Amino acid sequence: MRLRHKPWAKEKLMQYPQYVIQNPEDYKGEWTKAFSNENPIHIEVGTGKGKFIVGMAKANPNVNYIGIEMQDSVIISALDQLIEAELPNLKLLNIDGSNLRNIFAKDDIERVYLNFSDPWPKNRHEKRRLTYKTFLKLYEDMMEDGGEIHFKTDNQGLFEYSLRSFSEYGLLLKFVSLDLHNSEFEGNIMTEYEEKFSSRGQRIYRCEVKYQIRG
Amino acid sequence: MRLRHKPWAKEKLMQYPQYVIQNPEDYKGEWTKAFSNENPIHIEVGTGKGKFIVGMAKANPNVNYIGIEMQDSVIISALDQLIEAELPNLKLLNIDGSNLRNIFAKDDIERVYLNFSDPWPKNRHEKRRLTYKTFLKLYEDMMEDGGEIHFKTDNQGLFEYSLRSFSEYGLLLKFVSLDLHNSEFEGNIMTEYEEKFSSRGQRIYRCEVKYQIRG
Repeated sequence: MRLRHKPWAKEKLMQYPQYVIQNPEDYKGEWTKAFSNENPIHIEVGTGKGKFIVGMAKANPNVNYIGIEMQDSVIISALDQLIEAELPNLKLLNIDGSNLRNIFAKDDIERVYLNFSDPWPKNRHEKRRLTYKTFLKLYEDMMEDGGEIHFKTDNQGLFEYSLRSFSEYGLLLKFVSLDLHNSEFEGNIMTEYEEKFSSRGQRIYRCEVKYQIRG
Repeated sequence: MRLRHKPWAKEKLMQYPQYVIQNPEDYKGEWTKAFSNENPIHIEVGTGKGKFIVGMAKANPNVNYIGIEMQDSVIISALDQLIEAELPNLKLLNIDGSNLRNIFAKDDIERVYLNFSDPWPKNRHEKRRLTYKTFLKLYEDMMEDGGEIHFKTDNQGLFEYSLRSFSEYGLLLKFVSLDLHNSEFEGNIMTEYEEKFSSRGQRIYRCEVKYQIRG
């Protein structure tokens, strides 16, 4: 994603603490308090400009969403949509994904969305892929038993890698589509990237995997 | 596959007992005797005209191959190639896949190849797909611990289904390519179908899965 420097972004993000959580560590282990209800919490790691997570929050008022994006100049677009839509079930976090362990405790969340994550195609960058085993462990340590990862990408190499990584980790493949936009899948909410790539005729890959319930 | 009636096929198959095993049940539990050596045995379920299995047998003289095909008018082409090539490491079986249990015992084989299997797209025909769980159990009961299935197809729906079915069964996904002919995979030997479909620009999907070693 091309990043435009927006020096005012950081400040604006701080002006809306009801939408952009300022001290997320304070909610660790008790994220329901951030929403004042007991609905399940789904997070998106790498929310970008927020089209997906805002669309999901609008479509599913009985689910709480948290969009996580480290680039302030990007997440600011998600904030603008959130201010406009006044959604009570969506919060944003302007943090790096590697900080998740300080912010979420076991059972805090029910589902992780990964959309069009950076493919890091070089082998030596494998550890940076959001579907690498250390991340799969990280998500597991934040989720309820039987929690799920829902993943989509246009990147064939990343999808192949991720299917292998999920399998090695012992995740159950519940759903897989190798051409989402020509499938019978309903209710898909597109990201900004997805609109662009699929309009070029690029295939979108999608899968849902589930953590085993450990004894 | 269009089948031409070849009334002479059955008779010809019987004329070459060194290539077409006539009483395969007799080898159950001791298939190495059919090859007079201890090399591992790989089978192809649904060998068709035999281009793949003949090519594999030529390329890998230290592996023993068994091609299984129920249509006599089709497997006859594999026999013709085998007569021509005089391969000591390839045998053919003119039987239905559902008879495998009478023919192979635990540890008889090391690997199963499934190539362009009938997709049986209707839900009510799921049980007929060669990657349905009862078949996965059947293969497991014939294979060494840690045996593998190598599967390729041009059928997107069958591939998606099979990835799910493998995962549900607990098989480890070792390799997956969502566009085999545009990948770095080396040593691919094409089937007759594969040549036809890929020349039309159709994607070929391929994966390798491994049975868990059970305690």
